[in-house]
Amino acid sequence: MMHPADQLLIKPATLARRAETTRMFREAAEAPHVVAVQFAANRERMRQLGSRLRKLQPRAVVTCARGSSDHAATFARYLVEVCAGVLASSAAPSVSSVYATRPQLSGVVFLAISQSGRSPDLLVSVETAKAANATIVALVNDEASPLAGLADFVLPLCAGTEAGVAATKSYIASLAAIVHFVQCWTEDDELLDALERAPQNLTLAWNLDWSGAVSRVQSARDLYVIGRGFGLGAAQEAALKLKETCALHAEAFSAAEVRHGPMALVCADFPVLMFAQSDETRAGVVELAEQLARCGAGVMLAGARAAGALELPALKAHPIVEPLLLMQSFYRMAPMLSIARGLDPDHPPNLRKVTETL
Amino acid sequence: MMHPADQLLIKPATLARRAETTRMFREAAEAPHVVAVQFAANRERMRQLGSRLRKLQPRAVVTCARGSSDHAATFARYLVEVCAGVLASSAAPSVSSVYATRPQLSGVVFLAISQSGRSPDLLVSVETAKAANATIVALVNDEASPLAGLADFVLPLCAGTEAGVAATKSYIASLAAIVHFVQCWTEDDELLDALERAPQNLTLAWNLDWSGAVSRVQSARDLYVIGRGFGLGAAQEAALKLKETCALHAEAFSAAEVRHGPMALVCADFPVLMFAQSDETRAGVVELAEQLARCGAGVMLAGARAAGALELPALKAHPIVEPLLLMQSFYRMAPMLSIARGLDPDHPPNLRKVTETL
Repeated sequence: MMHPADQLLIKPATLARRAETTRMFREAAEAPHVVAVQFAANRERMRQLGSRLRKLQPRAVVTCARGSSDHAATFARYLVEVCAGVLASSAAPSVSSVYATRPQLSGVVFLAISQSGRSPDLLVSVETAKAANATIVALVNDEASPLAGLADFVLPLCAGTEAGVAATKSYIASLAAIVHFVQCWTEDDELLDALERAPQNLTLAWNLDWSGAVSRVQSARDLYVIGRGFGLGAAQEAALKLKETCALHAEAFSAAEVRHGPMALVCADFPVLMFAQSDETRAGVVELAEQLARCGAGVMLAGARAAGALELPALKAHPIVEPLLLMQSFYRMAPMLSIARGLDPDHPPNLRKVTETL
Repeated sequence: MMHPADQLLIKPATLARRAETTRMFREAAEAPHVVAVQFAANRERMRQLGSRLRKLQPRAVVTCARGSSDHAATFARYLVEVCAGVLASSAAPSVSSVYATRPQLSGVVFLAISQSGRSPDLLVSVETAKAANATIVALVNDEASPLAGLADFVLPLCAGTEAGVAATKSYIASLAAIVHFVQCWTEDDELLDALERAPQNLTLAWNLDWSGAVSRVQSARDLYVIGRGFGLGAAQEAALKLKETCALHAEAFSAAEVRHGPMALVCADFPVLMFAQSDETRAGVVELAEQLARCGAGVMLAGARAAGALELPALKAHPIVEPLLLMQSFYRMAPMLSIARGLDPDHPPNLRKVTETL
């Protein structure tokens, strides 16, 4: 594992200027526009899908995705269970692609999420689910992909070309499409309002200053990223981005899991990045942040304040949209941190854009 | 985070002798006996439950657990989907205990797994599931616990008192009970045979020498533990044990996820512990092991051979029982590694035995 160069203490302004020249920065900066375009483009087909879902009354929603898209799927499962009150499950691709089992899936919505729509194991899982009578809904960026061809409903991400190995705008686009999907299903007006404001809020979030996290994490080697409920998927995604672009061993946890073992590692030089949103999970996240800070962890908290924790600025919005905003602020910070650690966020080692697993 | 003392090079025989005095070692050593007792004790009620499950034809099995028990739940979900062909899902405790949502669960088996049967968030989830018409099956060590009181079917783990903060025999006991549960449901004779041989095989596995892993990992700070399919839960559990007892930042991944980002960290001094079992997932695990070794990772592989990887000895058995055997060999090694790193496996920092999350 690469050692961060402790002596690298680039001036924040220089760091910010250099970060602005990266592809990761430029692609992430497009997210507010992407979300606005997607919302308008999908309005009619979302309405049709919503009406179909209310008729179908699915017995379960099974998500199927890998990498960043699987972290969007985590977000989807919380929304489906909490907002639509329907059982949600994650398909383990090996069950269909390796073990070749075919559970019966009539009355099940199979939600496949993929930027490229081309991962072979995902396609095998979708074909298996289709043969088992599931209704296939695909969130996909490439509308000409095989995944789009297999789906009963295609919900385009409208993220445009994403060349960066580290997905950014396509991740935000996936979350926005998931919110829209659940909004059309439940016909929740507050969520509709929150979606309409999302592009503007994403722009505001993009301009928040998280550089406090850069100096805090600059010389670290390990990190936990913690969220809960609607914010858990964002924690998973931030951890993956920190691995890919910052050579940090960042691991994500639900706030509910940290006391079951992961606490053992937390002490003076162990940084912890925490995400909170304005809902029922918030008090527990704040309490955990304070407990971790008392143990000596270097806690950074976005979305709430806690004694002993560095506060990262965050906007107040609908709790379901807040994770999108936190990620947008995070994406602005990550390339700075990467550069501060002597790395290039556009060239993660050992990775390719489209990953083929069987 | 504690730094391992690189100079600690205790002789293997001394290390083994010191490890044998730990509670972790003594409790893990009881696992073969526990599994034999459990199998005999639960035979009749498993038969009744199996007959009930075949009549009920559940539309889904939802697992609910935390910490080590949740890693047993990962194992359960693979078995339910692959062997019983029924959709499996993991209940996010915050959905019921924090967001207070109540999805409709008639026709659903809610499988709660807990050593103590007393975690408040687990109990809230079980009460919610019961009120939503799920059939509650509890795998629980403490038969006098509130969880046992709530369940429609109680399957005792029969692990006896487990005082160690690091669960060992109760984890193996959970896996064995899960195999028995699925065996009775599917009436699979090969699985019955494998279960009958499990105690004897666990004893053989306990005597396998994994000390090669101790010297390989002695001075590491970070580690990946990788499994796939039936072996993924074991990888999750091994990673947790290495965090708790060895102050290693060990993170578990499915072999299918590693190429989606986690590869970025793998280079010369990054050790990777991999578990393979004798089924369709094995070739992919071996291929990944060889790829990681080529990237310079320090790969240790149990259950298969791969070019460039240190082979850890493993027994050949039924692929569903092999993860139990791998964990039993792992439990023999872990206290040695803990001591080699200057720690005490019986006193993990910052942890308690029964964890209360709400």
